[in-house]
Amino acid sequence: MDSSVASASPSEVTISYPALRQFAEAVFLHIGCLPDQAHLAAEGLVAADLRGIDSHGVARLSGYVRLWEAGRVNPRPRVRVVHQTPSTATVDGDAGLGLVVAPQAMQWAIERAAQVGTGWVAVRNSNHFGIAGHHAMLALPHAMIGLAMTNASPLVAPTFSQERLLGTNPIAVAIPALTQPPLVADFATTTAANGKLEILQRKNADAPLGWVQDADGQSTTNANALKSGGALLPLGSDREHGSHKGYCLGAVVDILSAVLSGAGYGPWAPPFVSFLPLPADPVGDGLGHFFGAMRVDAFRPAEEFLRHMDNWIGRFRQARPVPGQPRVLIPGDPERETAAARAQTGIPLAPPVLADLEALGQKMGIALG
Amino acid sequence: MDSSVASASPSEVTISYPALRQFAEAVFLHIGCLPDQAHLAAEGLVAADLRGIDSHGVARLSGYVRLWEAGRVNPRPRVRVVHQTPSTATVDGDAGLGLVVAPQAMQWAIERAAQVGTGWVAVRNSNHFGIAGHHAMLALPHAMIGLAMTNASPLVAPTFSQERLLGTNPIAVAIPALTQPPLVADFATTTAANGKLEILQRKNADAPLGWVQDADGQSTTNANALKSGGALLPLGSDREHGSHKGYCLGAVVDILSAVLSGAGYGPWAPPFVSFLPLPADPVGDGLGHFFGAMRVDAFRPAEEFLRHMDNWIGRFRQARPVPGQPRVLIPGDPERETAAARAQTGIPLAPPVLADLEALGQKMGIALG
Repeated sequence: MDSSVASASPSEVTISYPALRQFAEAVFLHIGCLPDQAHLAAEGLVAADLRGIDSHGVARLSGYVRLWEAGRVNPRPRVRVVHQTPSTATVDGDAGLGLVVAPQAMQWAIERAAQVGTGWVAVRNSNHFGIAGHHAMLALPHAMIGLAMTNASPLVAPTFSQERLLGTNPIAVAIPALTQPPLVADFATTTAANGKLEILQRKNADAPLGWVQDADGQSTTNANALKSGGALLPLGSDREHGSHKGYCLGAVVDILSAVLSGAGYGPWAPPFVSFLPLPADPVGDGLGHFFGAMRVDAFRPAEEFLRHMDNWIGRFRQARPVPGQPRVLIPGDPERETAAARAQTGIPLAPPVLADLEALGQKMGIALG
Repeated sequence: MDSSVASASPSEVTISYPALRQFAEAVFLHIGCLPDQAHLAAEGLVAADLRGIDSHGVARLSGYVRLWEAGRVNPRPRVRVVHQTPSTATVDGDAGLGLVVAPQAMQWAIERAAQVGTGWVAVRNSNHFGIAGHHAMLALPHAMIGLAMTNASPLVAPTFSQERLLGTNPIAVAIPALTQPPLVADFATTTAANGKLEILQRKNADAPLGWVQDADGQSTTNANALKSGGALLPLGSDREHGSHKGYCLGAVVDILSAVLSGAGYGPWAPPFVSFLPLPADPVGDGLGHFFGAMRVDAFRPAEEFLRHMDNWIGRFRQARPVPGQPRVLIPGDPERETAAARAQTGIPLAPPVLADLEALGQKMGIALG
């Protein structure tokens, strides 16, 4: 390790953003990606680490490599439009990395929006695409509202279900403003993302009630319940607190991403981990995503919209906070602030993640940092 | 009252669906609506009662009349497109009833989808539009996915906010299937809809923790907390259970419905009750809505999509339920089953709602039933 790797605490090491991105890019090159695509994939992956969504960044890099080793990721996909109208496209990702397929699909959505006001692209035959917000934000420089969602491995039980039938199925919406930073909502449609649960598992800590249910379908504080037949719970936690609404959201994401595109939906979504078998009776190809782009000037003059967004953001930011809280946040504030800080100070890596990356680098002959 | 009014219980009276719809239509004619628009408005309003969403049906009829009396509802609006692209339109509702403006706007979304694959319509200068699901479902006969959302009077505190800045801002998505009934998700982006709270208020009962906060921003079981400066909570209830995600959803609905269209957004959304003043410093016109229609064959052959939706719905319906629950529901099941039952047995009216309608009928010389 060189000077771009600094010790953050006895248990944590910090690596600069460019060094971490270069490492990821070298790994993607090693598995056979073309240079442009390796660059794109690394940028998307490490955007998660930069924005503080550590569960979706380089912590998953060796998982992607294992999917490639298992023959489930095509490092040189021919991503193509297989069906279209002036405002839509359906894209076959050719089993590529979602990190490569998603920006291409979003680009096609943006092109359609430029032509006819909005563009909507459903994607099949893809893989996990990192953080949804990164792709939604690609619309922002075009004065467009961006939307990205994806289905995922079935870990979530619908309301009243003992079975896991949905993924954490995130939704991201990015909305531009004039002088304010953009509003970027990006969230799993479950009460807690799986990454948060994994943090508790590593600490051997309990989960709050309402995050998971056990194999019998009872809410539990056991953070390891998923390993023994339990499930994540939809946003809302239980029926009385609106879990049927989180289930609705997860269902809509699954259908737009996978039924509309021809991907594997519901319990047929392919697992992220390479040691789990693919569904024996597939109903579609790979994972599915859904992207949207809407020109704001397709609805009203762009500057009018952007000025009112400044006003919206300003008003909500100035809201009187509840006692004990310093302020009301705008969606995207925490991630943007983390990104600004980490661009300066580097990205802290938890010891198991660092060890995993070092092992990967050693295997491939790539230096970390 | 004639034979279409039957006594359901000592405290409840049941009225047939056609009789209730005719009553509402007569009321809308009385305030000056054109016959076609009165019919449309009554159909939309009583769809809520039929589907079991009693808070949004005839219980609000005298509220609409009071808005008309206050000069805030234009009974003969010239609803018109003020901005457009091939896939979008912005509509000025001319201060009409949302129940009239919304089906017209949805019709324009459907026409655009027929032309270019999808259609998206933002509406300003409107009023409350009843249940979102009714409008989203207008897309179904066209083999389209329908989407409807609206902003609403500010009753909801964003995460960490002591102030009420958002409405209950519902989202509805209607998705067609082949032989299965359609999937219809329709939900407020709060933990509990305001109508549920009103039921507890009438019973003098406590609310579950996580539905409302008091004037100090603390979660409370006091179902009357909204009357003393409290607020409804976003879906998720508290930060630990994902209320920031419900806040994101409510924010996105507010921005698509009102900032994109030029309506009053956030705390500037006009109040539903006529005795509250309009905002002194308006930022836009009236309430806002947002509608979408997507041809399923803009993404894949329609029959393929519809067959896979049958499979999706069948699989989720057959999921193993948790102990104590008879079955896993598909979004829209409870409302469809209630509608089928009430079409046969009539619509039960709570005593205060019945008294309200009878007083309204007496004032206007319209018989109920």
